[in-house]
Parts: sequence; C-alpha cells; structure tokens
Amino acid sequence: MDTLTPPANADPLDPGQYRDVLRPVDEASSLPSHCYLSPDWYAAEVESIFMRGWHLVGRADRIPDPGDYFSFEIAEERVLLARGADGIVRAFSPACRHRGLLVAQGQGNCRRFVCPYHRWTYSTEGALLAAPSMDQAKGFDPAGYGLVEFRLDEWAGFLFVTMDPAAEPLADALGDLPDLLGRYRLDEMVFTRQKTYDLACNWKCYVDNSVEAYHVPSVHGKSLQPVAPMQVWHYEVREHYYSLYGLFPGTMGVLKGERCFPPIEGLGEKEVERHDLAILLPNTVITATVDSIWWVTATPRGPGRTFVMVNHAFPRKTTERADFAEIAQNYYDRFDMVNVEDNEICELQQVGLTQRARRPGRYSDHEELVGAFAAYVTERVLGRSG
Amino acid sequence: MDTLTPPANADPLDPGQYRDVLRPVDEASSLPSHCYLSPDWYAAEVESIFMRGWHLVGRADRIPDPGDYFSFEIAEERVLLARGADGIVRAFSPACRHRGLLVAQGQGNCRRFVCPYHRWTYSTEGALLAAPSMDQAKGFDPAGYGLVEFRLDEWAGFLFVTMDPAAEPLADALGDLPDLLGRYRLDEMVFTRQKTYDLACNWKCYVDNSVEAYHVPSVHGKSLQPVAPMQVWHYEVREHYYSLYGLFPGTMGVLKGERCFPPIEGLGEKEVERHDLAILLPNTVITATVDSIWWVTATPRGPGRTFVMVNHAFPRKTTERADFAEIAQNYYDRFDMVNVEDNEICELQQVGLTQRARRPGRYSDHEELVGAFAAYVTERVLGRSG
Amino acid sequence: MDTLTPPANADPLDPGQYRDVLRPVDEASSLPSHCYLSPDWYAAEVESIFMRGWHLVGRADRIPDPGDYFSFEIAEERVLLARGADGIVRAFSPACRHRGLLVAQGQGNCRRFVCPYHRWTYSTEGALLAAPSMDQAKGFDPAGYGLVEFRLDEWAGFLFVTMDPAAEPLADALGDLPDLLGRYRLDEMVFTRQKTYDLACNWKCYVDNSVEAYHVPSVHGKSLQPVAPMQVWHYEVREHYYSLYGLFPGTMGVLKGERCFPPIEGLGEKEVERHDLAILLPNTVITATVDSIWWVTATPRGPGRTFVMVNHAFPRKTTERADFAEIAQNYYDRFDMVNVEDNEICELQQVGLTQRARRPGRYSDHEELVGAFAAYVTERVLGRSG
Repeated sequence: MDTLTPPANADPLDPGQYRDVLRPVDEASSLPSHCYLSPDWYAAEVESIFMRGWHLVGRADRIPDPGDYFSFEIAEERVLLARGADGIVRAFSPACRHRGLLVAQGQGNCRRFVCPYHRWTYSTEGALLAAPSMDQAKGFDPAGYGLVEFRLDEWAGFLFVTMDPAAEPLADALGDLPDLLGRYRLDEMVFTRQKTYDLACNWKCYVDNSVEAYHVPSVHGKSLQPVAPMQVWHYEVREHYYSLYGLFPGTMGVLKGERCFPPIEGLGEKEVERHDLAILLPNTVITATVDSIWWVTATPRGPGRTFVMVNHAFPRKTTERADFAEIAQNYYDRFDMVNVEDNEICELQQVGLTQRARRPGRYSDHEELVGAFAAYVTERVLGRSG
Repeated sequence: MDTLTPPANADPLDPGQYRDVLRPVDEASSLPSHCYLSPDWYAAEVESIFMRGWHLVGRADRIPDPGDYFSFEIAEERVLLARGADGIVRAFSPACRHRGLLVAQGQGNCRRFVCPYHRWTYSTEGALLAAPSMDQAKGFDPAGYGLVEFRLDEWAGFLFVTMDPAAEPLADALGDLPDLLGRYRLDEMVFTRQKTYDLACNWKCYVDNSVEAYHVPSVHGKSLQPVAPMQVWHYEVREHYYSLYGLFPGTMGVLKGERCFPPIEGLGEKEVERHDLAILLPNTVITATVDSIWWVTATPRGPGRTFVMVNHAFPRKTTERADFAEIAQNYYDRFDMVNVEDNEICELQQVGLTQRARRPGRYSDHEELVGAFAAYVTERVLGRSG
Repeated sequence: MDTLTPPANADPLDPGQYRDVLRPVDEASSLPSHCYLSPDWYAAEVESIFMRGWHLVGRADRIPDPGDYFSFEIAEERVLLARGADGIVRAFSPACRHRGLLVAQGQGNCRRFVCPYHRWTYSTEGALLAAPSMDQAKGFDPAGYGLVEFRLDEWAGFLFVTMDPAAEPLADALGDLPDLLGRYRLDEMVFTRQKTYDLACNWKCYVDNSVEAYHVPSVHGKSLQPVAPMQVWHYEVREHYYSLYGLFPGTMGVLKGERCFPPIEGLGEKEVERHDLAILLPNTVITATVDSIWWVTATPRGPGRTFVMVNHAFPRKTTERADFAEIAQNYYDRFDMVNVEDNEICELQQVGLTQRARRPGRYSDHEELVGAFAAYVTERVLGRSG
C-alpha cells in the first residue's frame, strides 16, 4: 500500500530535494510539485530567472513610426516599448514617476505619454517634459524623473529587454541561434497579430508543454497530428537555446487542405520540408516554417497564473498581397484552435499538481527538453548557474 | 466598556489557549475564531485529522460493475473509487504518474483510465498498462508506476478510505456503530443520488451545525420543526462516534403530508418512531430513519471553503418500485430545501467569525456534541490524541 | 541605464526605509510601494491606526427613533449603531455572543436583535434578553453576555466610535474642528443618503486622492474643474485635522447650472464663497459648503481592497421642502459621477504600485496634505506617535 508525503514543510530552496532533477535525462525525475505551487519558489524564480537575462518582447516593425508603442509583461513587470521622435526604439517602465500609474497600456501611437492622474508628461524618448506645480519641491530636477528605462537590444527585427544591468551582450546570449534561423529571413518579417490568454496554471506547465511533441497524438489528435505527427520531431539541447525541429513534407502553418502562402524566398528544397522551433529560455518559443513565423511567450503572474502572448509574422511581401487578410485568417484559426487545446491541458495539469499523491515522474524519449528545462530552472533558483 | 483583543499574534498551535475548550461541556467555551480562519491551524487539521483515520467515501453499490468508478475528496485530495475487472473495489489517487493530471473525474464506467495528456493508460485495478515511448528511461519499470493506492475497507456496503498506513483496522475504528445502525439493514441499501455544494465557510461550521438540533426552530422553522422539533432529540458522545437520535412518530424522510415509501423491512414498532444520526468523526453524518438513509460529508478546501456532498440510499426493494423516481423526488426536494437553509447559516457564521469582537461562547443543553467535537479537533491538532 | 530593486525582502517595519517620508514636505518622498501592498504593513496599520483613536461612523439623526439602527465598518470590524428603547445611541459589535453570527446588518428598526441561528435575543441596549436552553451551562450569567460595546461619543450630531479604551476624550481629539465648521450649523443637519463602493485599491490611494486638488484638472476636467478649479484651493496641516478649503463664488454642491437649495441660514457673505474640507485622520473627509454637507470614509478590507461610504446631509429645513427629493437628486447625481472618476483613478494607481520599477516620488505644491498623511501613517505604524 502506498503512503503519502505531506506538502513540503521543508524549505523548498533546500538543494537536497533536487538531486534526481539534475541527473541525466534518462535517469532524471521531473520537478517536485511545490515548484509549481510554492510562493517562495516562485519568488526565487522571478529574481533568478526573470529579472536576469534577455527576454524577447516583440518586433521592431510592430512600431514603425515615431510615437508608436506597445506593452509587454515580464513576470508581472510591465514594459513599454516605444519608438521615439528620434526614430529609436526604447524600453521603459510605464509607471509614472509621480504616483506610479501606468502612463500607457496596450498599443497605439501618441506624441507624448501623459499620466491620467496629474498630467505628468513624458516624451516618447522617456524624458519628463512637464510636471505641473512642482515649484516648491527642493532640488527637483525633471532630468532625474524620466521613465525608468530598461536595456534593450535587437536581433533580426526582434526586440529583447533585460532588467539586469550585468547581463551579457545580447549577441553572446543568443549564441548560434542566428545560424539556425537565418534561412527564414527574419529581418524581412512583419508582425501582424497578437492574441493573449490568462491561464490558471504555473508558467512551467506551459513551457513543459511547448518543448515536446509527446502530447501531439492525444491533445492535438485532430489538428496537428495528421500534418506533423509525434514521430517527425527531433530535440537538441544546444548551448544557448533548445532546438526542436521536424522534417516532413507539408507546412504546419495552416491545417491540412487550407489555402496558404508561398514559401519564404530562398528556401531550398530540403528546407521547405523543415519546421523549426527555437526555445529561448526561460519562456519563449520562436517557430519558423516555410511560409511564416510565430512566437509564444508564457510569463507568470504568480505561482498559479500565466499570461500567454501568441504572435505572428509573415514576409513583408506576403503581407502586401491583396488576399493577405483572407488567407492569414486560415493561419490564425488554426492557432486559435491548437492554443486552446494546449491551454486546457495545462490548466488540468495544475489541478493534478496540487495532489499530495502526485509524485515526480520519469521522462519519455520525447521529453529531453522538458528534463533540460527542469534542470535549468532548478540551477537558476538554487544559484548554481549564471 | 469592552475591549477588543487583536487577532492571534501568538502561535495558534500554542496549547495554552485551549484550556476552556477542553473542559467538561457544561463549563467549556467554544473554539477561538482563529481555528476557523488560520491557514496554520488548517494545515495542522489536514495532517492530524484528514490524513489519518478512516473516511467514509461512498457506497460499493454505486459502482456495481467492473469499470465503474466515482470520485471523492478528502481535504483537497482526490480519491478515485473503481471496481476492477476482477470485481474488487479499490481506491486510488487519480493523479497520473507521468505529469500528474487527473486520469478520471466525476463518475462513469471505462475499460481503462487513459491520461488525456500523453495517453498513459492504467487498468481499472490501477496497473500501468501503457506508457508510450519510455524506452530510454533507465530502469523504468511500469510495475512501479501504477496509480497510487489508498487503503480501503468496507462495512455494510459503505466504503472507507484512509491515507494513514498506520490506521487501526476499520472494524476497530467503527466500534459498536454496526449495533446502532444494524436495524436499518444497510447492506440492502442502494445509492441513488448525490448533490454537492461549495460553501464559503470553514468545514467545522458545517459540522457544528450538523450535530445539534438547537437551530431547528429558527433555521428550519417551516421545514423540519413541524415534524421533528428540537425537543425530541437526544445526544450521546460514544467511544467511536457520536449518536444523535430522535424519538417521535412520523418519518422525517419527506416533509409533512408528502407521499413516502413503506418502512424498512423488519423494523419494530418502536423503531419506526426512531430517527438516528451517527456522526463519524471528523466530518460525516449518516442519518437512518424508517424508510431510507442519507449521509453528508463536509470536506475542507481551505480554511474558509467547504465542499459538501449529500447522498441518498433506499432499500433495494424500494428502488425497484415502478413509482420510485416519482416519490423519491419528494425526498430530494425536502433535502434540497433543508440543506440550503443550513448552507446559508454556515456562510453567515463565517463572516461573524472574522470579527475580532467575536469571542468563544458557552454551550446550550443541545450542544454537547458541538463541545465534544471542538475538544476532539483541538486534541488532534495539538497532538494529544491518536 | 536604470536598475530595478526587488520587492522589499527587508522587514517593512524597519524604520530606516522611511527617512525621506518624514522630511519636510518640500524635501520629502512619498511612501514606498510596499506600504500599499504588504500584508504585514497593513496589519500594523490596523493595530496602530484603526484600532485606536476616534472614527466618525455617521449621524445620530439617521436613527431618530428607539430601535433604529445602522451598520458601519472600521477596518473589517463591523459596528452596529443602535438607539435603545431608552433613547440613547450605543455602538456594538453585531457578533452574537453564542456562535458569532451578525445579529444585524444594513439599517432598519427592530424591537430586539435576534440572532438568526439560535434565537439568542438582545435588547436594543445590547443586553442579552433570551438564550434558549442554557440551563446546564455552569455559571452562565446572561448579564455577562450582552453585545460587546464600543465607546461612543457625539459632536454636532456626528457619532464617533473608538475601539481603544485608552483613547483621549473625543473633544480633545477634535481640537478646534468645531470652530472651523461651526458656521455650517451641523447640529441642524439631517442625514439623507449613503452610497457605497468596494474598490480594488489600498485605502491610502483613496485618502491620497481626497486631500489634494492637484488631480482636479485631469480627473474631474468636465465635472469639478469648471466650478472649482485647482487654483482656488488652500491646504493647512492643523494640529487635530487637516483643512482644505476653496474660496470662490458658486456652490459645488451641484454641477454648474443645476437647480440647488438656498444657503444654510446665517452664513455671511464671505462664507457663501467658501468650501471647507475637514480631513479627520485617518480616513474621513467632511465637506461643508453653502447649502449642504457630505462626508466620505474609506475603510480598508485588506491591503488591496477599500470600502468607501459616501454620505449626505442637508439642513432640516431644506429636507422639509416639497421639492427636496427632486432637487436633492441633482446633488446625488453630481457625486455619483465625481466619485466614479476618483474610484477609477485609485484602482489604476494600485496596478502601478505593484511595479518594482515604481519608486517613491516628490510632492507638488498641491500635495502638502498627501505628504503630511504619509508621515502620519508612518509614525503611527512605526510607533513614534500617540
């Protein structure tokens, strides 16, 4: 007869509990449930993972004109991406330097960011332009009260932000990722759509789901499995990212039989049978295939809540076709269906993880990246790694 | 003028605060409010009360055929009751041994339990039958990855589960309960209906309510009081359970004037004027009267939330009548009304318990069992008792 | 490039963090965000601020007749104001002395307070009149089981309650407030309406908003600004309260152009151009102008939730006019509009305060009282002041 162990009374940050997580994947066990539930573990993840390193926040072409902006979220911290009047894209905290209200949300275009509370006004470059009635405040220098700015860098049209002043240069952090994805001409891509979901699960449920095709036959049995069955996928833990790729004829950008766009220019014969997922730790997957790319970020809003942002981009030439909107809808419909399948299973898993009878499991042949991800998170939280 | 004491800054598990709770009931005070509110006290209850001892989970006749199953909940922990292909009933955790998803919920019949995530497949006896693509996992032996099984035992058709491997045998735990309820021929009863409620109160509010008739005139003034007024009830703290019984002519199974079923066979003249409640600690009340039985379990889902399961059973002979469904509805209607009256008052009490001006009270002549229950909980939590 | 500081890992009650808060307002910084978010800081506020001092709870004329009662809330603690059969107003906790249920909520008139659970019955003076079946309870003396009573005092028809037996007399606590507001003949006012809101913000967001006109041009641009623009307002930190007053022609009781009531009798020519806000710490603002008064209390229901009660009173003579209800509606409509404007901005601020990039700000020329309030809260919580 089995026995139950009580929920971790021990310190969840005590390293002794994670020996099996850190073994080679064919010997390893998955993370203990408290890593998906504990507020203390979550707080450690935020500090050691989300407040460090580079995070893909979106496309520069989403904000082509001066004054264009959009918002992003990294572990509950809002980031405002704005193209200044000088044409340069910057990343700010949208919290007003007076009372803290967000001076911008969502996306749009403006000449200035004006706080709705007391009309403190910032330029699109983040400088405080006007703060009414601050005459008596001794030593108040508007130059010191611009929007808090985050480090931002760009690769192939993708904007990355870090909240860590000591983060290595972006190019070093990406490693040979540009080689993997170079063939897709990312520079020529144009952002066309974002859809978001607010899920009742830990962010790692979503990442675990994103890095294996083991669930394709059951969760996506009617959607993806007919096009891209589990067997066609390959997994590689690379130094700077994980690679998950499939080799099979037929695009996955739309469901079987739907009208789709022509291939990205320059792709060779073999490459049009390739489908690449690049997993950027901690929580973003860029997918590139013959005719388009999409990328998904799953950011935590607490131990049991995840905000998912799904984004699409197509070659500029494709987006200029007369029938773009009509055909693109086939792509969006497919994703709306597949995403919901994943969302539901992730929320179901979260319920199961609350059970004290649930125990860490072993990894299948398709879960090499799940195991690598568990080890990565553990090492970051326990402080063993950069 | 009165003064207020702040909410317990002291450790709620410090025994000094409970001296008055443990006095003889005619001198005792009720539990301090923090026992209904504090997460720490709640966690101690789960360990010392719910993860120990035997818990009535339902009727074996609810799952008569191989592959039949239903779910139960003990302090947030799900229990899956299933009759195996071998005809034997077992209790499992429904958490999949791979990623933890619940492989079954609610009730139904199946040949196998298949996890919706990756199709790990278990027999109705709990064995892992299939786990796709586990070839690389070193030393992975499916025999060690069946559903986690809980100890199960049966008395008079009632299934009991314990999560404590050291629990005494069920027969010892029940004591002379079979003598009390023997006359109702429980073995011949058939489960017919379950109704559940999710309440915004502590589980002990519900138990406190269930073990006294002191509230009948006010809370059930138009429903129960005309049939079974407060005065007819008697209370007995027995070694293994509490007994609450009424001696009065007329059944309580339906409201006055409604059509009802004939008495259980074999009941003597005196016995048809008897109405028995057996309170099985910590949180189940079996009620038996002339024509049927019902039982209610109030299990916690946190300090301020309770999941209530109300169940009915009738003699098999009764259930086979042509007019069973029609007349049984009279019984169900009565309970749906009475239960809601209790549910509302329990949720109102929870609000009052948050008030720091609220103080422990004294017990009336009808609250002997409330006092005994408070002492039982306190002794378990403080570790003074088995 | 800016850097982010993590959320307070340090003890929020460590005084070293508040030096800038306590500087003169022209040098001071506003409160750190954790003062609006931390459960520990909130708990300290409840003890040091809400469980001490006098709190305005309403008008005596709201309960003119014996048996009249209404409810109030002070930091989650309910207060029942009742006029006894003896004509005297008292303040009680509505928690029944038996099981703790609230014996009265909202407002009404009754001969006795009867607990809905077991019919424990209290007089309107708070005495326990009946407790059924308490015969066995040894030494149970109903005289010791009246409703818990709070200290209550009255000034100019306003009822005040304290939960602190050591609180100074009300008259001492009010200081020269009666001089400031005497001209409005508060004794002759009659309560006419209460409207409440449950907001997703810290109570201090609401108070911060209530004590400055800096936000009038932006938040109330179309409502208040045309009548009472930011420039007409003056701020005074007085020993026992804060004074915020405007000198300008035209009442603010209704929106421009609406029908209004004649001035309060006896107001001089200058006084009809005066608009007085008296801020009673910690969380009540009494506003008096030419034709009426209104007062608002923002009481916390946790760190991120605030219950706001908005009340109106008019001179008795006004309320006796045949057209009172019709014209009074103009006043209520104006408030319903303006309150919602403030409510929305307070909830927006709460979102911004969760951002770790948000930093304490400096005070404008219109925020002297915001700064004084921040210092008051800090001193109370840190225990430096009475």
